[in-house]
Amino acid sequence: MIQDTSNVTAQTSGPKRVLTGITTTGTPHLGNYVGAIRPAIEASREDANESFYFLADYHALIKCQDPAAVQQSTKEIAATWLALGLDTNKAVFYRQSNIPQITELCWILSCICAKGLMNRAHAYKASVDANMAEGEDADKAITMGLFSYPVLMAADILMFGASHVPVGKDQIQHVEMARDMAQRFNHIYGNHSSILTLPDYVVDEHVAVLQGLDGRKMSKSYGNTIPLFLPEKQLKKHINKIKTNLLEPGEAKDPDSSTVFQIWQAFATADQTAAMRQAFAEGIAWGEAKKQLFELINAELAEARERYNDLMERPQDIEEQLQAGAAKARAISEPLMAEVRQAVGIARLL
Amino acid sequence: MIQDTSNVTAQTSGPKRVLTGITTTGTPHLGNYVGAIRPAIEASREDANESFYFLADYHALIKCQDPAAVQQSTKEIAATWLALGLDTNKAVFYRQSNIPQITELCWILSCICAKGLMNRAHAYKASVDANMAEGEDADKAITMGLFSYPVLMAADILMFGASHVPVGKDQIQHVEMARDMAQRFNHIYGNHSSILTLPDYVVDEHVAVLQGLDGRKMSKSYGNTIPLFLPEKQLKKHINKIKTNLLEPGEAKDPDSSTVFQIWQAFATADQTAAMRQAFAEGIAWGEAKKQLFELINAELAEARERYNDLMERPQDIEEQLQAGAAKARAISEPLMAEVRQAVGIARLL
Repeated sequence: MIQDTSNVTAQTSGPKRVLTGITTTGTPHLGNYVGAIRPAIEASREDANESFYFLADYHALIKCQDPAAVQQSTKEIAATWLALGLDTNKAVFYRQSNIPQITELCWILSCICAKGLMNRAHAYKASVDANMAEGEDADKAITMGLFSYPVLMAADILMFGASHVPVGKDQIQHVEMARDMAQRFNHIYGNHSSILTLPDYVVDEHVAVLQGLDGRKMSKSYGNTIPLFLPEKQLKKHINKIKTNLLEPGEAKDPDSSTVFQIWQAFATADQTAAMRQAFAEGIAWGEAKKQLFELINAELAEARERYNDLMERPQDIEEQLQAGAAKARAISEPLMAEVRQAVGIARLL
Repeated sequence: MIQDTSNVTAQTSGPKRVLTGITTTGTPHLGNYVGAIRPAIEASREDANESFYFLADYHALIKCQDPAAVQQSTKEIAATWLALGLDTNKAVFYRQSNIPQITELCWILSCICAKGLMNRAHAYKASVDANMAEGEDADKAITMGLFSYPVLMAADILMFGASHVPVGKDQIQHVEMARDMAQRFNHIYGNHSSILTLPDYVVDEHVAVLQGLDGRKMSKSYGNTIPLFLPEKQLKKHINKIKTNLLEPGEAKDPDSSTVFQIWQAFATADQTAAMRQAFAEGIAWGEAKKQLFELINAELAEARERYNDLMERPQDIEEQLQAGAAKARAISEPLMAEVRQAVGIARLL
């Protein structure tokens, strides 16, 4: 999700500052791992980048009004990233709600953000269209949080002077909106300087999408996920549930239409993939293929799972790491906010 | 603006907690003084009340994108209230932007506030109507700040558990909306307890409205004001500009259609008012009436003006008082926010 920046122009000549938000709803699954977490953690180890990862718990409140679920998801996601080896000495890893400057900047941006811009936000428009199609009031069940979250997202990005924001195609608009607000802010208040950094979006065209148990994209909303850190036995059980066809052992199987093979690819080396392709041609039994798939995944995750389970038993340790990350983050947000306050006229009286 | 609560039911059985916001745009004038500041300061001295006054500088950003003007107005308004004798030992006097919990609560309320509620806000609807009347796009020049400021206002009120909010009739809706959000929050997250206090509005039907130089209501937007702390000479000059009719000295004058008399009333004792009414009947010269008016106002304001000028020379002292007030305010906002965070699921991991 982070790598391909060939088609964008960096705003800063220094190292890229890359910012990624992680919404704290739900339990991480293999699809999240392959599509987002693993590449992000790899990218965070590239020396050239400054990486910022945050648990977007203010955003979670838009979607989820179950406090225990938000809290649990925060714990699971933080433990997941830490267990998988996110280098918190190098990356800044923090919880959004530990940075009080973010909602402050959000309000200040609100005051220069045209309402018309939000009217055109894809997510809002989709909700309105759905309401209209059902003959309901256009804004039925739409909260101010849903309507205005691109402003919060702009604050998330601009607060840390992010130069690059990796996104899926559906989120390009949010980065463009953040850019828009930064430009407008600098124009009104910048006095010829650029207080806020204009971010670029980075779309990786090659994001790995994992299939779920039923062959559709693995997604919480389809109920077809394999949670990332299931205990071994459970992991095996889940993998055994992956939908296959009725071909018998000995009958040649098509790897390219097989979910088992697709997931295999996401974890295997090139050699392992070639070998499994061969095994499919030679009629490997589904049971055997699944057994090997379990072993492959389990080998990649076993150590991290142990660290994960450990961390989940010691939430104070997770909290400590989040607090340390927040302190690093505030070392950036506090001086920038002081500058913003000065610029808009709400600084201390002197 | 604060006194008459006979028509509302207090939510709390303890002392009333009364909260008043002061928007930091413009320089205080005699109309502000008579209509708002003087009665508020008097009310703050009533033992039964806990009074909260805040400089609403986040709100100012909606209306004013001139940072020097916002900063200057903050200084002038703070100096005005302090010079006029607001008892900051008794009242909590703070600047909104020194309470980081306010914008945080604002976001959390956004997530439970229906967008439809904001669609119905009077100020927003008036702007839309004006745009439509001119054949423009409905949301032309409307910012997200303007659209969503009732949510910020709700955060202002709910953050301090205000039981009573003195308002003009045009602002009743804001308190009702705050009440609505508090109710909704308690319903979703309260677990049968009331985390947020439901506020009541208090409308004083007898708010003193002062006439300006031209006889219309004294208002910045009419350009007919007499600034509160003008130097004596300037005050005299301004008073001499009050519009009168052409009646000569010795001709009886009608006090009830006279701006000079109307302003006199706002500063005079009952005896002084009766005496001036008599003088009008006896044909007092306009010049003489204005001279007496100047002396009356000057007598009431002279000492405070000296304190005001003093304070304006020592902005650090104003700042110190605001910081002390903010510390008192945060002693309330911090524990409440901790409770709110716990309730919605973004508390520390334990």
